[in-house]
Amino acid sequence: MEGGRLYGRGAADMKSGLLANFFALKTLLILGLKPKGTVLLQSVIEEEAGGSGGTLACLHAGYKADAMIIPEPFDLRIITAHPGIRYFRVKVIGKTAHAGQSHLGVNAIGKLARIYDRLMELDLERAKRHRNPFFEASSGRSCNLNIGTFKAGDWVSTVAGAAQLEARISYLPEETEESMRREVEEAVSEVVAKDPWLKDHPPAIEWFGWDAKPWIQDPEIPLIRRFEKVASEVLTFTPEIAASHAGLDTRFGPYFAMPSFTFGPRGGLLHTSNEYVDLDSVLQTTKVLAAFIADWCEI
Amino acid sequence: MEGGRLYGRGAADMKSGLLANFFALKTLLILGLKPKGTVLLQSVIEEEAGGSGGTLACLHAGYKADAMIIPEPFDLRIITAHPGIRYFRVKVIGKTAHAGQSHLGVNAIGKLARIYDRLMELDLERAKRHRNPFFEASSGRSCNLNIGTFKAGDWVSTVAGAAQLEARISYLPEETEESMRREVEEAVSEVVAKDPWLKDHPPAIEWFGWDAKPWIQDPEIPLIRRFEKVASEVLTFTPEIAASHAGLDTRFGPYFAMPSFTFGPRGGLLHTSNEYVDLDSVLQTTKVLAAFIADWCEI
Repeated sequence: MEGGRLYGRGAADMKSGLLANFFALKTLLILGLKPKGTVLLQSVIEEEAGGSGGTLACLHAGYKADAMIIPEPFDLRIITAHPGIRYFRVKVIGKTAHAGQSHLGVNAIGKLARIYDRLMELDLERAKRHRNPFFEASSGRSCNLNIGTFKAGDWVSTVAGAAQLEARISYLPEETEESMRREVEEAVSEVVAKDPWLKDHPPAIEWFGWDAKPWIQDPEIPLIRRFEKVASEVLTFTPEIAASHAGLDTRFGPYFAMPSFTFGPRGGLLHTSNEYVDLDSVLQTTKVLAAFIADWCEI
Repeated sequence: MEGGRLYGRGAADMKSGLLANFFALKTLLILGLKPKGTVLLQSVIEEEAGGSGGTLACLHAGYKADAMIIPEPFDLRIITAHPGIRYFRVKVIGKTAHAGQSHLGVNAIGKLARIYDRLMELDLERAKRHRNPFFEASSGRSCNLNIGTFKAGDWVSTVAGAAQLEARISYLPEETEESMRREVEEAVSEVVAKDPWLKDHPPAIEWFGWDAKPWIQDPEIPLIRRFEKVASEVLTFTPEIAASHAGLDTRFGPYFAMPSFTFGPRGGLLHTSNEYVDLDSVLQTTKVLAAFIADWCEI
């Protein structure tokens, strides 16, 4: 702890939110207050890896409610949307050769680098072509194509015979997953069309891992308008309604006819060893959640 | 074994050469013949990783001779030269960011890809600028710059914050190691000069591992002319005198005033699981070595 912040991996994302949930409910109970409705508090795993084994498993097991609030660390904002998210990888093969005769091989690094370049162009094209002011407001971008890894070659003395990149793409609710995939596949095809080696040795595109559909929660519903009002009273400012650029477990709510949103503390450097949470925002989150339970469940 | 070939990792490079050495000497001894000079047979490790712990260690320990023959699998040719060889790596740093805000990060893959491209251009430039017909005869190239590995990024959902490539460069006896290094460093500097991010975050170039000076053995010395004559009689063809594009332990000979060359069997797909050696060439190598020991050591 230093300067009002608690540091450590998971401090913000999302031990603090979980504790805010816990103490909001516990405080009410300690005070002898009893919500008229049932308040379910769940602590789940696996949101970072797709969420199917955590929140979705709980929902499938029958733990449902009239609404779902997830206290993700989004700076005391009310989050009501995120884009669709998919992972994909592109694999190319080259032709190995001894480094002393590298001109007789085909280096897979160079072939994949052309695909990297084209996908980065596609990222810019998509940012211009697919625009959504609500999504754009958070970070200046509606959608992103990120290439997170690029791995090629086994040994410095051999021409790299295989190369692979892994990417994460986000897509807007106004797109379809199919049209987004087509854009990626066409971009790769354009590179292939210009390269005789790749024409004869077409890259493999694999869609793997994360498979999140866009999530849009109408903020005009009574649940959120009520939450906004209660939060404004506790915080003395009106929390902003915003979109997330990360995929959230909130998206599973609609599949079970549950409106869902996120509201949680203020943190930074999430997923790094210097991750931190502002402790005053944890207390604010706790108070808002307690006040909302009291209000919504008519204590 | 199949079709006159023995398959397996190490079959050619270089268990067969070692056995040819062993049986050449043993056969003479079994026949009751005794070389007038001392014939040292050494089985050493580590040539692939730079050779300092094998051949060089033996020489340093005092195991020297008037000449050194290494039976590397070079298709019954007499190898009398190889280029200088060095390894280097280039590291760049970018700026990580969440994949959902990738436009706020700096992807290290793209920065390193520009350096990859420039180094591949340098490879072609060097092949045009540095020419040596003797080296060029073996594979159509005098020198090679190979990029063997390219690794970047930790996770698909993060902008790749660091990237590294590893390369092997060969250089001719008529170059200096310093001038070769300057060519590499200037090529990287050209990329840096064009990129504001790289200017502020200059790549690191590290010269590591392999550090072989060019090796040139004059083939006109009596040792080699004599060997060529004896081999021609055994093989019924005159073995070609050629350069290797791989670094060999032969290069340590000159440091100890020992002429050195390589002569060994015919193999293929070296360093792969399908490596093979032509068994008839192993027998030919054995016969040539036995005949040469008998001739040179005046049995």
